[in-house]
Amino acid sequence: MGFSITILGSSSAAPIINRNPSAHVINIHERLFLMDCAEGTQMQLLRFKIKFQRFHHIFISHLHGDHFFGLIGLISTLHLLGRKQELHVYAPEGLEEIIDLQLKASETLLQYPLTFHNIQENFSGIVFENDVITIQAFPLLHTIPTHGFIFKEKPKIRKIKKEFVDNFKPDIKSINQIKKGKDFIDKTGNLHLNQNITFEPAHSYSYAYCSDTRYDENIIPYIKEVDLLYHEATFLSDKEESAHDKLHSTAAEAAIIAHKAQVKQLLIGHYSARYREEEDLVNFKTEADSHFPNTLLAKDGLTIHLQEDN
Amino acid sequence: MGFSITILGSSSAAPIINRNPSAHVINIHERLFLMDCAEGTQMQLLRFKIKFQRFHHIFISHLHGDHFFGLIGLISTLHLLGRKQELHVYAPEGLEEIIDLQLKASETLLQYPLTFHNIQENFSGIVFENDVITIQAFPLLHTIPTHGFIFKEKPKIRKIKKEFVDNFKPDIKSINQIKKGKDFIDKTGNLHLNQNITFEPAHSYSYAYCSDTRYDENIIPYIKEVDLLYHEATFLSDKEESAHDKLHSTAAEAAIIAHKAQVKQLLIGHYSARYREEEDLVNFKTEADSHFPNTLLAKDGLTIHLQEDN
Repeated sequence: MGFSITILGSSSAAPIINRNPSAHVINIHERLFLMDCAEGTQMQLLRFKIKFQRFHHIFISHLHGDHFFGLIGLISTLHLLGRKQELHVYAPEGLEEIIDLQLKASETLLQYPLTFHNIQENFSGIVFENDVITIQAFPLLHTIPTHGFIFKEKPKIRKIKKEFVDNFKPDIKSINQIKKGKDFIDKTGNLHLNQNITFEPAHSYSYAYCSDTRYDENIIPYIKEVDLLYHEATFLSDKEESAHDKLHSTAAEAAIIAHKAQVKQLLIGHYSARYREEEDLVNFKTEADSHFPNTLLAKDGLTIHLQEDN
Repeated sequence: MGFSITILGSSSAAPIINRNPSAHVINIHERLFLMDCAEGTQMQLLRFKIKFQRFHHIFISHLHGDHFFGLIGLISTLHLLGRKQELHVYAPEGLEEIIDLQLKASETLLQYPLTFHNIQENFSGIVFENDVITIQAFPLLHTIPTHGFIFKEKPKIRKIKKEFVDNFKPDIKSINQIKKGKDFIDKTGNLHLNQNITFEPAHSYSYAYCSDTRYDENIIPYIKEVDLLYHEATFLSDKEESAHDKLHSTAAEAAIIAHKAQVKQLLIGHYSARYREEEDLVNFKTEADSHFPNTLLAKDGLTIHLQEDN
């Protein structure tokens, strides 16, 4: 039951050689979610051998081109590949019109249902839920309406102690109830408190993504204590003024947010095209590490496992 | 004074690994023209080290995504790079609205003038002209309005014979007129016919591009005797029926057109994603060669020199 993130693009608006703009894949128990979809995302999926048809839910943080220009290409290719299954897109209002206009121009009638879920400006709340996870959106502070997203595993079932099962032989129905946290009364009428007959459930992992945002402590309640926070870091501190003008963050600011939100791990990316060299990225890490040790650097093709498959 | 073509993408609609969809660069005496602009074109320009700012004229053959989905990204990147010079786009009606809608969604106000030149359905005629070339559009036979383009160098000046200059010492004004084809009357009143005192001008090269089209002999008058014809060949003959259904051509059909139009060289590309292997491309060449010997195969990154720099 793995939980991993694979970076498809770690650049900000302008692509540079070997660094695509924003897109990444969240794999939760082999269910794949696509987050942002810059130009070239489908080529990156080919490069990193991720099957296009495995996506059913695509999330677009905001309507700057480096986060959505690749969506129309992916939608078109899925059509050409004969897709029949529904595809859901969660995005700010306006994207549906952009996609529809392009499909109309090419006289393409999609062979699969494409459903847009508009996320209103400043919305916070659950946008997707299934049996194992919830996905919540929350507002970021950028030049146009922008949302961050949190992926949370739902609480997992408790594990029953073997000696209890051996001694009291509960039936299947009781076992399921105990796993969900219920106490147990045995045949002699004795009460067994759940906490005494079970172990704590396995950890429920959580992941938060803050695509494009100025340093903003208002997001802390949303992302508090997540296992992994992917926070943009477009600039180094030498360009702090540029970052503020453009409502972006520096590596240090991302790390301060991570520290204040007590997250377990920080990943930074969305680097400006001005930082081209390996050495520049070392500086991102150094600046972030001084506020949040062991910050990870996004890199196209990198996979981070929050939880390994087992 | 070179004349060359550089392929940025040789695939049809669906990209495959190492093969981008349609785009290529025409370099005529170091003036660069971009023809079609599929998703990923800007990354291909980076890869093949062609400077984005050198383009002032972009031509879009038709509004299928594999020919234009990369335009919005390129337009946006030019803006981010601080472009000030005007950019002209020649395309079917509808593209301007698609680009405008996306710029509006991202609240981008371009810092340079962007001018669209709509090419009406079935139009044939000159769409661009400067001191050395003309670019002409002509209709192709495809599922939506589609145009081919012919790039023609204008007639070049004649070369004056050295012995004539030595003997009659014409002034600068007379020399310029003789180079343009005028006769000359010397001081004693003798007439020198231009053909006797000059050599034929250097060859004026021509290049034609037929992006997506069914086999169509109506295009022959437009492309007759061009130095290089780039004609789509989406399928091999085993899929002739698919080609006809989708209004595409096979390699053999492209070669028959080239033969009938008596072009000097044929280049084929726009291969379906079903043909992935090197061996498949050998089959394209074999099928084409049987109708037009020495057909060239388009390949991402390939440059074909019609005329070398000198």
